Amino acid sequence: MEISNDLGMNSIFSDRITDVPKSFIREILKVAVDPSVISFAGGLPNRELFPVEEIKQASIRVLEEHGRDALQYSKTEGYQELRKYISQRYVDKHNLDIPVENILITHGSQQGLDLVGKILLNKMDAVVIEEPGYLGAIQAFSVYRAAFNPVPVSEEGMDIGRLQTIMSTKAPKLIYAVPNFQNPSGISYSEANRRAVADLVRDSNTLLIEDDPYGDLRFEGVEKTSFKRLIPENTVMLGSFSKTVVPSFRLGWIVAPDNIMEKLIIAKQAADLHTNNFVQCVIYRYIKDNEFDEHIRKIISVYSSQRNAMIESIRQYFPPGIRHTSPEGGMFLWVTLPQHMSSMKLFERAIIDKVAFVPGYPFYINRKDVNTLRLNYSCVDEGTIKIGIKRLGQAIREQLAA
Amino acid sequence: MEISNDLGMNSIFSDRITDVPKSFIREILKVAVDPSVISFAGGLPNRELFPVEEIKQASIRVLEEHGRDALQYSKTEGYQELRKYISQRYVDKHNLDIPVENILITHGSQQGLDLVGKILLNKMDAVVIEEPGYLGAIQAFSVYRAAFNPVPVSEEGMDIGRLQTIMSTKAPKLIYAVPNFQNPSGISYSEANRRAVADLVRDSNTLLIEDDPYGDLRFEGVEKTSFKRLIPENTVMLGSFSKTVVPSFRLGWIVAPDNIMEKLIIAKQAADLHTNNFVQCVIYRYIKDNEFDEHIRKIISVYSSQRNAMIESIRQYFPPGIRHTSPEGGMFLWVTLPQHMSSMKLFERAIIDKVAFVPGYPFYINRKDVNTLRLNYSCVDEGTIKIGIKRLGQAIREQLAA
Repeated sequence: MEISNDLGMNSIFSDRITDVPKSFIREILKVAVDPSVISFAGGLPNRELFPVEEIKQASIRVLEEHGRDALQYSKTEGYQELRKYISQRYVDKHNLDIPVENILITHGSQQGLDLVGKILLNKMDAVVIEEPGYLGAIQAFSVYRAAFNPVPVSEEGMDIGRLQTIMSTKAPKLIYAVPNFQNPSGISYSEANRRAVADLVRDSNTLLIEDDPYGDLRFEGVEKTSFKRLIPENTVMLGSFSKTVVPSFRLGWIVAPDNIMEKLIIAKQAADLHTNNFVQCVIYRYIKDNEFDEHIRKIISVYSSQRNAMIESIRQYFPPGIRHTSPEGGMFLWVTLPQHMSSMKLFERAIIDKVAFVPGYPFYINRKDVNTLRLNYSCVDEGTIKIGIKRLGQAIREQLAA
Repeated sequence: MEISNDLGMNSIFSDRITDVPKSFIREILKVAVDPSVISFAGGLPNRELFPVEEIKQASIRVLEEHGRDALQYSKTEGYQELRKYISQRYVDKHNLDIPVENILITHGSQQGLDLVGKILLNKMDAVVIEEPGYLGAIQAFSVYRAAFNPVPVSEEGMDIGRLQTIMSTKAPKLIYAVPNFQNPSGISYSEANRRAVADLVRDSNTLLIEDDPYGDLRFEGVEKTSFKRLIPENTVMLGSFSKTVVPSFRLGWIVAPDNIMEKLIIAKQAADLHTNNFVQCVIYRYIKDNEFDEHIRKIISVYSSQRNAMIESIRQYFPPGIRHTSPEGGMFLWVTLPQHMSSMKLFERAIIDKVAFVPGYPFYINRKDVNTLRLNYSCVDEGTIKIGIKRLGQAIREQLAA
């Protein structure tokens, strides 16, 4: 199958694909599949919490009641009943009025990123990205040759001074933000920070993408104001069922203003005609026939206990001077090692000690190594977390002593 | 939700999205939903042939036997067992050796077009497209700003003289071909035509996309040689389960040489991480637990009877001088009206008489009206076909007399 080099076939590729980073995390996960390794490296929801039996009942019911409709080609915009449900949930949970027409069902929120990039980005258009930021967004926008402008995020939210400079000098087309329990850091934007970001974006031509895959998984604290409320005309929201029901269905959605939605639908149709209609019907049936919020509370209960176990273990086993975030929800926390310590070297050491995590550098633009790392707590039980963090603390001590 | 024009927000869109035609067929289908209209306008497989009960049993079995695996995030390349099955089927049915590593599962073959365009096309790269050609391909490549070079197709296949001129003057990056029972025309490339096309492409840097969604639905005649056999290093194949099992699962695949596959996987990951894993498991289970080829024979039996009914009715009810193709498989046939007759005007007339079809012009590049039209026979029973074609014949006679 190899094409011989004589043909010079390497030159056939488009410019856009040459810039896209391969996922480092894919490579990391290959190391972490060794079952003797305790892995905090994944980014997966906990499979033990999947509502398998309920999904089975929903699948049966859909196929028995309207199987032929559910299996036929369908509308690019998505299954009408599911879109109505999402619209109603925005009213009920967030007091946001989102007409059904402004909701497009996508193959996961990752496809939302691809479609938004596709319809908006010309080569070298400025895009603001969180630092550290979600790797999937960096990948998606790299395809459209974005010029990335990283803005550091802390437990307060975005660095407003930095954002202000970029807004006034670069007129960015997009700001990508995960304001609730961010991947990779677990941080959330404070109320004041959101308002400061919104003040900078309001009346500009910049669109803010509010990606919220973890928003439903709040363990504590109160919900903060959505950018959709603060700057409705400048906000595109992305949502997902991957963290609250199951990821393999690849079901997410985009909320966008009318003029943007019109282009998104054209791009969606060209990309794959429409989202899998059968699983749209199944997830709708699942939600209608079960206590969805009760299921979410179960996930919250498990994840928050595991977060607590992780934070307690860090305090117990890590040497002093190591900082970490304390997420109010979601699946990740973020560790900052002493200033010149390499998380890549720590990773190599830790793998020998049978514990894995993701070194921080892929979450930055153009860094080779950093002193930060991501820990996932959704998939490891409390006892195993304790053992794994103890091993990791030992590895850190050894590296500090080296 | 409307963004005010003061913001000048129209200028925010990327150049690429401005060129993409909205699907005319979507608009046509809206007219054709009136249940009193006999519609030959659709492009859907016949829903009565969906294996609903078998899909239900397969779904249950997947969820009971490995539900948590089937519902979790999974590999970008696709479900390994399904890829192996596709590989083996190429050996069994077409005597083609396609390693599993060269198969990527996609959200329908439409996504295959998007990914191939994404990794290969720079702005104004030359792309050869059949005339008439598949609208979804025109849409997908328009996103990447292809310069389309139409090559007329007849019941022999591609116009070789025209292709030769384009190959020598434009060095096209891609040739898009549907050599079996093409949409919209139903034509297939002859053996001699395939070899002539292959001779022009061999040793060039041009890639030929062999899209084959209908290849399994052969009513008569013998299978012709695949481009994959004639020019393996220059061929990318697209396949689909939409026409042989169900469309709503959005399951297709790409077969590509190693160097191209590497880029496709990066693009797929950036686009939506991976294809829905649950339905990949379900379709694999369905195929393994049932007589898949027997099911395909059932589809062939129904579609070929309906094709026969359509051709007989055309001969009976259309005025002389109207040409039509005689497809050996697939779902469509193509009608050529007298030279200066408008198929758009005929459409407007026919809708009044409660019969619908797709006028030919959207299947060409930059035409406003033509004397050709597409008829679909997969979804209409023989009796209804007879009535519909009679109405259409009457409409043609009236327009001829006008």
